[in-house]
Amino acid sequence: MSAIMVNRKGIHTFLHATCLFLSLAFLLNSCGQDASQTSEEGWTLLFNGKDFDNFEKLNGNADYAIEEGVMVGTSQLNTPNTFLATKERYTDFILEVDVMVDEGLNSGIQIRSNSLPDYRDGRVHGYQVEIDPSERGWSGGIYDEARRGWLYPLDLNPEARPVFKAGEWNQYRIECIGNSIRTWINGVPCADLVDDMTMEGFIAFQVHSIGREEQVGKQVKWKNIKIKTQNLKHSPWTDIYVVNTIPNYLSPQEEAQGFKLLFDGKSTAGWRGAGKDAFPEKGWKVEDGILIVEKSGGAESAHGGDIVTLEEFSTFELKLDFKLTEGANSGIKYYITEAYGSKASAIGLEYQLLDDEIHPDGKQGTGGNRTMASLYDLIPAHTNKPVNKPGEWNHARLVVKDTRIDEWPKGNNYEKTEFKGAKVEHWLNYRKVLEFERGTQAFYALVARSKYNVWENFGAWQSGRLLLQDHGDEVHFRSIKVRRLD
Amino acid sequence: MSAIMVNRKGIHTFLHATCLFLSLAFLLNSCGQDASQTSEEGWTLLFNGKDFDNFEKLNGNADYAIEEGVMVGTSQLNTPNTFLATKERYTDFILEVDVMVDEGLNSGIQIRSNSLPDYRDGRVHGYQVEIDPSERGWSGGIYDEARRGWLYPLDLNPEARPVFKAGEWNQYRIECIGNSIRTWINGVPCADLVDDMTMEGFIAFQVHSIGREEQVGKQVKWKNIKIKTQNLKHSPWTDIYVVNTIPNYLSPQEEAQGFKLLFDGKSTAGWRGAGKDAFPEKGWKVEDGILIVEKSGGAESAHGGDIVTLEEFSTFELKLDFKLTEGANSGIKYYITEAYGSKASAIGLEYQLLDDEIHPDGKQGTGGNRTMASLYDLIPAHTNKPVNKPGEWNHARLVVKDTRIDEWPKGNNYEKTEFKGAKVEHWLNYRKVLEFERGTQAFYALVARSKYNVWENFGAWQSGRLLLQDHGDEVHFRSIKVRRLD
Repeated sequence: MSAIMVNRKGIHTFLHATCLFLSLAFLLNSCGQDASQTSEEGWTLLFNGKDFDNFEKLNGNADYAIEEGVMVGTSQLNTPNTFLATKERYTDFILEVDVMVDEGLNSGIQIRSNSLPDYRDGRVHGYQVEIDPSERGWSGGIYDEARRGWLYPLDLNPEARPVFKAGEWNQYRIECIGNSIRTWINGVPCADLVDDMTMEGFIAFQVHSIGREEQVGKQVKWKNIKIKTQNLKHSPWTDIYVVNTIPNYLSPQEEAQGFKLLFDGKSTAGWRGAGKDAFPEKGWKVEDGILIVEKSGGAESAHGGDIVTLEEFSTFELKLDFKLTEGANSGIKYYITEAYGSKASAIGLEYQLLDDEIHPDGKQGTGGNRTMASLYDLIPAHTNKPVNKPGEWNHARLVVKDTRIDEWPKGNNYEKTEFKGAKVEHWLNYRKVLEFERGTQAFYALVARSKYNVWENFGAWQSGRLLLQDHGDEVHFRSIKVRRLD
Repeated sequence: MSAIMVNRKGIHTFLHATCLFLSLAFLLNSCGQDASQTSEEGWTLLFNGKDFDNFEKLNGNADYAIEEGVMVGTSQLNTPNTFLATKERYTDFILEVDVMVDEGLNSGIQIRSNSLPDYRDGRVHGYQVEIDPSERGWSGGIYDEARRGWLYPLDLNPEARPVFKAGEWNQYRIECIGNSIRTWINGVPCADLVDDMTMEGFIAFQVHSIGREEQVGKQVKWKNIKIKTQNLKHSPWTDIYVVNTIPNYLSPQEEAQGFKLLFDGKSTAGWRGAGKDAFPEKGWKVEDGILIVEKSGGAESAHGGDIVTLEEFSTFELKLDFKLTEGANSGIKYYITEAYGSKASAIGLEYQLLDDEIHPDGKQGTGGNRTMASLYDLIPAHTNKPVNKPGEWNHARLVVKDTRIDEWPKGNNYEKTEFKGAKVEHWLNYRKVLEFERGTQAFYALVARSKYNVWENFGAWQSGRLLLQDHGDEVHFRSIKVRRLD
């Protein structure tokens, strides 16, 4: 403050104050961290910087040492993943730790994890907050070690991928409160998981197994490891994607993001039959929190028929779980218009649901454009898409966003077109497998070459209902959530 | 400077100097003008702010007055475009003038313009630098009043379109030196025209005719009108598009932008027959600075055959003039690959050249995708495209730019694809009529549905030759220029 106080003469004081203000604003901006997170009280050191008396080594034989108060893990050949685990067990907590890792070594922080005699001979398993110095950049993502695999891959949050820096100290913050597990690196939100499979366990620091001679001796370091278990409060909800595995449960952060349940797990409220006034009397049922379209012989809309939302949507984000039966065919359609009065399934764009292996439609169409997660009969999903088999749950996400404005010559002026919901993304199991842009000349040209060219304005609609398709095969739906992006 | 000098004590002086420096830098940045332009000497006032003794009113009867040294034009009903023209005539000059105009009134500044008894009864005609407060935002563009129409529409320079502000003073700068006519508004380059149709004439200030009662009384104002006619130097060349109407002439600014002539007006150097070692011995000729493919009966490559550039291109900008004969068919192909050994025209993407009215191919294909300036048989050009008739010259521009990087799931990693030349634009007569993005899932899907699906990797090439097509019809080419955008 002295720079202001030294000089008290009118305009000069004003100038100095302004300059100091600008300088401070600049410093705060370049800092990039949320100051509120560091002002919390009630921290306890999880690691005293002197000994490992509160820890035990599990699962493997990589080396852990203490160097100037820093916990240092060093990779070794011929040993599985190694974990230095707390003897104490934790339920709800906030953990902060600084992490530095060499390039080429994967690592992670286990939370609410366990080693149980009756689970794979004591294999350490459970939530792992990723430490990933590779080009992939999934640090801060959540992996379910030796159990379900990736729960929160950082495809879901591309802004967070470049945040972690190999060879530098990075500050991790992990909040485990109730069914909410959230992570930050250097103040940037990385993952937001709602899951209740395991609510308690140890915390452990991983040295990953290595496969190549040149990885020997690579190190991962942890310091300033502190934990807080009392008076826990959620950090403010952010807008990053929420992976929520609890069926038909709208979490507070999903609610804050504007999501609403399109299926409450009990009733068919919010839906009706396509082209009908009411919900179909047969062909659909709700059982054990699951919305089920029944098997009826594999024909389009021959039994209960498609169902559509009562509401229309323009730009939106839809997420839901679905489970196919063997050989099943169904679909999630959007921008449905019933005005065409089709006798078969209602007309709209379709996120295809299909057992690609068994149902014959997967081999038909052009270039794979009738396979799972494709834009049906128009654009194939990426061939490397991650599909879970019939009988297993899959997660579908559909994002329709942004307004496109085209200008084209019209005499000496422009013809302007505004196109809502121009950008579309199809996601499958938390990975993006298809993106395209409506309202483009290429998209119109593609439709013109397809069977859809008989429907006026096909794919260029600006608003419409969502639809779940009855294709005569049994398919299960749950956790159907939608938010408007208008 | 006093803020620094008042306080001379060590750290405070340093702080103050730093702050002052930052403040000055901020002021300069927000100014946004090139200071060098205002430091020129040798200006003469074109208008003395007191009387119109050096001017005469031509063509119409709108009102001109002087208010506090400002030239004020006021619109009137029932009179054609009115011009307040200098009695003196100018050849080379630099003109600077501040312009303010009401919304709803079009205006302009005539340069090198004339009113001649033997041209439309004295109709004022010639280059007009546009004043356009409308949403179109073509201020600073160049219109050829009562002669050729738009020479430089601001489609060519979208960054300049928002620069002019209605109801505010805007600084125009117009440089006329030799065959170069260039304009700036508020320091932003607007138009760059190379043209030699008229090298001398008056300067005049236009009040546009109006058609509606509510436009009566709208005003356009000019002040600080100064001109310089000695020791003229071109401002530094910029990267805005150069419209160059002089046949086969590479202007210094085009050269500075990296353009090269692909046809020197005399020889066929730089070209050879497609799939051949040398230039075709028949079927093509050079006459009067024009490269001509001769009439041979309308079949593909049956006579001289297609010609290709010796060089290959990855990302590039091509511009050329072409003139069709009645009913003619030809094409500009890019990313040509001769490896397929096609018997007909070589395989590549094609900017279609066609007499849409007469040649039957215009009605074939899908949704108009075989018409003029379309991506042949794939994506139609915009229906409002500005086409000049057979026998008249047209200007084609083809831009292939940018690198697209796609990431797709591959197990727990990404499959990355880098795609050079992803964004393509087809321009016709200085208006953009088609844009599309290669390397997208929609583009692959479109190709998969087309006749091109028999050619492996069609349209996904990263480099290839340019081609002019022999389709058996007489077509003329000139001013063929290309630059690499790599």
